[in-house]
Amino acid sequence: MYYLGIDLGGTNIKAGIVTEDCKIIISDSRPTGLPCSAEEVCGNIADIAMSLLSRGGISLREIGSVGVGCPGNVNGSAGIVKYAYNLGFRDVPLKALVESKMGGIPVFIGNDANLAAFGEYRAGSAKGAQSSVLITLGTGLGAGIVIDSKIIEGFTGAASEFGHMVIEKGGTECTCGRRGCWEAYSSATGLIAMSRAEMKKNPESLMVELSRAEGRVSGRTAFAAMKAGDLPGKSVVDRYISYLACGIANVISALQPEVISLGGGVSREGDPLLLPLIEAVRAETFGGPDELVTEIRLCELGNDAGIIGAAMLGEQKMPLGKQ
Amino acid sequence: MYYLGIDLGGTNIKAGIVTEDCKIIISDSRPTGLPCSAEEVCGNIADIAMSLLSRGGISLREIGSVGVGCPGNVNGSAGIVKYAYNLGFRDVPLKALVESKMGGIPVFIGNDANLAAFGEYRAGSAKGAQSSVLITLGTGLGAGIVIDSKIIEGFTGAASEFGHMVIEKGGTECTCGRRGCWEAYSSATGLIAMSRAEMKKNPESLMVELSRAEGRVSGRTAFAAMKAGDLPGKSVVDRYISYLACGIANVISALQPEVISLGGGVSREGDPLLLPLIEAVRAETFGGPDELVTEIRLCELGNDAGIIGAAMLGEQKMPLGKQ
Repeated sequence: MYYLGIDLGGTNIKAGIVTEDCKIIISDSRPTGLPCSAEEVCGNIADIAMSLLSRGGISLREIGSVGVGCPGNVNGSAGIVKYAYNLGFRDVPLKALVESKMGGIPVFIGNDANLAAFGEYRAGSAKGAQSSVLITLGTGLGAGIVIDSKIIEGFTGAASEFGHMVIEKGGTECTCGRRGCWEAYSSATGLIAMSRAEMKKNPESLMVELSRAEGRVSGRTAFAAMKAGDLPGKSVVDRYISYLACGIANVISALQPEVISLGGGVSREGDPLLLPLIEAVRAETFGGPDELVTEIRLCELGNDAGIIGAAMLGEQKMPLGKQ
Repeated sequence: MYYLGIDLGGTNIKAGIVTEDCKIIISDSRPTGLPCSAEEVCGNIADIAMSLLSRGGISLREIGSVGVGCPGNVNGSAGIVKYAYNLGFRDVPLKALVESKMGGIPVFIGNDANLAAFGEYRAGSAKGAQSSVLITLGTGLGAGIVIDSKIIEGFTGAASEFGHMVIEKGGTECTCGRRGCWEAYSSATGLIAMSRAEMKKNPESLMVELSRAEGRVSGRTAFAAMKAGDLPGKSVVDRYISYLACGIANVISALQPEVISLGGGVSREGDPLLLPLIEAVRAETFGGPDELVTEIRLCELGNDAGIIGAAMLGEQKMPLGKQ
């Protein structure tokens, strides 16, 4: 039995056929096709799925189920995308639409960050753990929670919005309207804002030169400057890590997962990010530094996590892998 | 079949015999007996249990299991209390100790706040909900999480420490060593500190007179003054509710439970606390005010929640209620 995993984004639809032991045997990507209707998007999903089956020489009858990861507020139990702004979706019955285009094969849907978390849990950095939280440090700060093999979706699909947990009441304005959200500091966007502010204060910083050479300030600028011995760069990285550690310590206070996995662009900095981060979290751990049992790791699957997590969603819902 | 629930505290042991439909048919309380060894505490637990059975005319064979709620870090799966400072416990095998004193009847243990949350979930303010979080506003700020009938314990029993989630980085010092923890603002202790600070600024406030009459500043002082038209009192309550709402909005961002139940001393203020709190949380809800689906309610079971939750723990672990 195989499973089909779809990672639906605003720009591209990524899809893969996944084995029972979480290996992608064939995958593909094509444009989402926006602007167009939800029904047309689902037609594009069915197209890429059918083309993958044909290329892989696998029949639809060998597919246990299809899983679709979608950004926004996804109510998996109801099969409905409540809203997904970058897809223009509002109350879209995604599960039923895809099922109708795929000959009635069982379709399960979930939030894309939740499914990436599930992929890392099943096959990547949190494999074998009792519980894990994935934190993605990208344009925004996304998260997904898996406990005892179950995705924590929330009552109507809006759980694990840790990015919009306030860590500095009255602080920096967030895109969501609140002030002081974790995302405003610890996303790549937050890191870039911190870098810009420091460059303004210290125009002699190496960050100015590096960003000029790159043509922009990026999430890498401060880290690169720090590695070259630039003190303003180090100060930005220190501040960034301090906020990141604050939010991670909050996640641990809330859920004490066995593993926290870091993904997204900023996580590619690797050890210069991870090692001081672990120490900073340890210092903030409730019960004292000895009480930090949560392991903080880097993600292992990259973009495959979303496809694998989506594919395995069906296996979770139908544990025998049978229709 | 009946279940025995024990709520073990630093001062008293409370116990009750609970029916399958979560009714306490007989209960009792006696001193914990500290200072004494963990083994002696377990002897006292067995004494009160046996005396309850005898008074209720119920035999040990009619008891499906015993549940014990204990403060501190409790690893339920391992049966061990990692630490409980106010009991002087450190790595105490509480499950095995109580089992040995109770003729081998199955014993299950859990954190007391988690079990109070479970009691409210099974029989009180969150009965019938998919998921709930209990927040107790007492000396500290305790919490418990129940999702799909399961208590979220964390990897080694330290989850749901929402009181030690930082909501104001670098803010008020907390007893745990971090700064800006939710507990430092939204516990009764936090409310009293806010009241004291405001009384110092406004010595003409009615709070000064009220606290003199009561002989102390309490969690009720600011609310009582506000109700009598005192502006400094109202300003304290507004500030208190603003911090409480900030933390509750964070809990909703993290888990989006169907219900949040408020317990503990401050919750007894009722509507003057609850109604403005709901509006403040609504204003802070990610996705906009229309997206608040979590219901915020007052607890219904008072001190019985801990006994009922402890008793029902065994039913959860052994769903058929059989040994």
